[in-house]
This record gives sequence, C-alpha cells and structure tokens, in this order.
Amino acid sequence: MLFFTQCFGAVLDLIHLRFQHYKAKRVFSAAGQLVCVVNPRHSLKYASDGCAVSQTSTDQSAHRHCREVVYDSQLTSCTCPLFSCKWDGHLEVVVSHLTQTHRIGILHGAEIVFLATDVHLPAPVDWIVMHSCLGHHFLLVLRKQEKYEGYPQFFATMMLIGTPTQADTFTYKLELNRNQRRLTWEATPRSLLDCVDSVITAGDCLVLNASLAQLFSDNGSLSIAIAVTASDIQAVEPDM
Amino acid sequence: MLFFTQCFGAVLDLIHLRFQHYKAKRVFSAAGQLVCVVNPRHSLKYASDGCAVSQTSTDQSAHRHCREVVYDSQLTSCTCPLFSCKWDGHLEVVVSHLTQTHRIGILHGAEIVFLATDVHLPAPVDWIVMHSCLGHHFLLVLRKQEKYEGYPQFFATMMLIGTPTQADTFTYKLELNRNQRRLTWEATPRSLLDCVDSVITAGDCLVLNASLAQLFSDNGSLSIAIAVTASDIQAVEPDM
Repeated sequence: MLFFTQCFGAVLDLIHLRFQHYKAKRVFSAAGQLVCVVNPRHSLKYASDGCAVSQTSTDQSAHRHCREVVYDSQLTSCTCPLFSCKWDGHLEVVVSHLTQTHRIGILHGAEIVFLATDVHLPAPVDWIVMHSCLGHHFLLVLRKQEKYEGYPQFFATMMLIGTPTQADTFTYKLELNRNQRRLTWEATPRSLLDCVDSVITAGDCLVLNASLAQLFSDNGSLSIAIAVTASDIQAVEPDM
Repeated sequence: MLFFTQCFGAVLDLIHLRFQHYKAKRVFSAAGQLVCVVNPRHSLKYASDGCAVSQTSTDQSAHRHCREVVYDSQLTSCTCPLFSCKWDGHLEVVVSHLTQTHRIGILHGAEIVFLATDVHLPAPVDWIVMHSCLGHHFLLVLRKQEKYEGYPQFFATMMLIGTPTQADTFTYKLELNRNQRRLTWEATPRSLLDCVDSVITAGDCLVLNASLAQLFSDNGSLSIAIAVTASDIQAVEPDM
C-alpha cells in the first residue's frame, strides 16, 4: 500500500512538473524571440538589384497583374513576388532568386519578430523578409499603399513558397502589441502562386490604417511578432 | 512517513485536478456563450425614438463634435453616445436614457457574442448594445462609415459608462473568427466621456475594411465575440 501511494504521488508530481516545465518553456521562448530589423524597399531600389523596373509610378502601379502565373496541373511556375521585378521561373528556384538577386535574408525559427523601420516613408513601400521553419520557406510582406489618395494603409501577409495544398497545412499569426493594445491576425498562409498583389488587393490580410500604425509604432518602427504552426483548423475556428 | 507521503500525493492530486477543472470550465464557458442579435440603427431611426436629429446627411455628419462634454473635475456630465441624439446629462443616468429612450438592451455576462445583422446596408449605420459585467455597464458600438466615399469601413469599440480612471481598470477583447481566419483586438475600454465619435475618428479601435467584413460575415451578419476582464497590463504587453 505504501509502495502504491508513493508511486501515485510520484506520477502526480511528474504531471505537475511537466506542466510547470511547459509554462517555463513558453516564457523562455517569448523572451528569447529573434528580432529581425527590416528596412523599407521602394520600387526604385529594385532597379539597382538588376531587375526590370516598371515605368509607372502611380498608386495603381502597385497592383501588378499576375498574368505570368501558370496555373497548370503541376503548379510549379510563378513570378517574382517583389513589386516591379519581372522575373518568372520555377517555384523551386524562387528562394535562390530572392536571396541572390534581391539579397533578402532568411530567418530561422517558428517564432520571430519583424521590425519594419521608417514606416513614415510615403507609399508605395514594401518591407520583406523570408522565414524558414517547419521545413518550408515563407515570405512575409508588409506593404504601405494608398488605395485611396491621401489615405495610406499597411497590409501584412505571409505567403508560403510552395503550392496551395502545402500552404493549407500551416497557420500563421501576426501580432502587434503596444500602448496597451493588441491586434492579432491568424490565418492559413497563401501560396506564392496566388500572387502577393492579389492577396493585398483583395484585403485578405492584416490591414492597418495610418492611425493604428502610429499607435503601434515606436520611433518610426513597427514591430510584428510572427508565429507559424502546423495547421489546426479546430483551434482557429472553435464552435463557429 | 506513510502519512507524509499520502498527504504530499493528495496535495499534488488536488493541484492537478484544479488545473483540469480550470481547463474544463473554460471549454464550457466557450461553448455556452450568450449570443445577442443586434439590428442596425440608421440616423433616421433615431428620429422615431424622440431624439433631435441632425439635418446633415453627408459622411462628415457622422463626426459629431463632443462640445457638450464637460471635462470638469468631477467628470460626471456627458452627451448621449448615439449618432444624432442631442441629449446630455449626468453619467449616472446615461444607462436609463439609453434603455428608456433608445430601447437599447442590456446583456449580462463577461463573455458574449455580438451578432450584427444586415451589414450590407449602406453607411452610415450603427449597431449598438449595452453589456453589464464586473459591476459596470459597457457600450459596444459597431459603426459602418465611409471616411472616403465609396470605401466603407467598420469600426468597433467598447466604451465604459464610467470615468477614464474606472475604464483603465478593465481590458476588453473583440474577436472575429470565420473561414480559417481570426482577427482579435484587445485594449483598455475608453470612457464614454471620451466620446464614441472621437475614438472612431482617431481610429483607435478595431477597423475592418469591406473585404475583411465580407470574409468574416455569414449571410449578411457579422459575429463578434466579446470578453471583458479586470485589466492586466502585463498580460497585454509582455516584454515589449
């Protein structure tokens, strides 16, 4: 009986310790998040990267049509996701195109903090970073754009450098947290084949107007915490 | 020794059971949330409620100035928060004014679901409900407004029917969850003395463009889950 009681106590102890360890691990993870400083990219900047540049400079020029996207049965051909770059090629080589031609860095880890600098710059302007986790590459795009003149807005989305079927197996979360306010957007990433411009034009992303961006920014920088997880539809949409 | 081991095991057991109970309670709470159907209120509708109606009908008319608000040392006098109603009086009688003159219902419970119907109606239009919990009354306002012509947006905010000092002791959360997307806004409620129109004009609230509202709506209704808690700044703004 003594042995049984001791064993039972030890098992309960282990359960409790495991719970404490899980909590401690989460705190450590939050405190040790990787912060990535991302500088803005104007359309003119892309010219120096050796890419073809669109000659139009109006707000409408930000809405590049993805006519080059080939939605065939293999779904492997796409355009460069960057504004005004006319490169197109196979999905498998987009990552090397982005790192080599546009010098976009790759961050590793499921949870990172994206720190966009100089958010006061006039639209159109992009902040872009690649994010490698769970065996895939993701592209985070923050775009400042004036859909209506004099009314700049920020659009943030995460795209999987992969097919729509692969994208459906993940969930991403973007979180802004400052001045006792928190804004969170959780969704399934879209495939790069869906085209960044189309996603932003459709408004199917995190949208911030200038007032909210001002509230969440600190010295001209906007901090967005990013987390990617394997998709769990039940967790995102409980009972609704 | 046997007695000590048994006691230790029992304590651990209690801790574990308490954790399980807490988890179960949260699930039950989520499943048993009160859903409140809220019909739209046009400015013309307020006329039948016996209130003075603003004669202007442009988009700018939605921005009523709160000149009547008396920010004296007692902070007890305010205007009616409803669009185009010119009533003003003491803060203590706003609740009876809203229930008796405007027939706005009061919902009880810290967690409710606000179901705004007919969100396709043209702007300007308001959906309003009162929410009683934690010993106070809160006013939830969802407003569809065109700050820019042809570009309707939805603004949702929660105001405390109380002073700014009282408002600082609470946190509210608004959550939209549909189509594998979740948008969450957490903030400290603003005092009714700060004026609903000013908060919405400043954009210090949950802002949805028409595309997002469409994604989150179901058969013309927009469901917003609301939770109010005693404020915990540390929880809203960890390490940032």
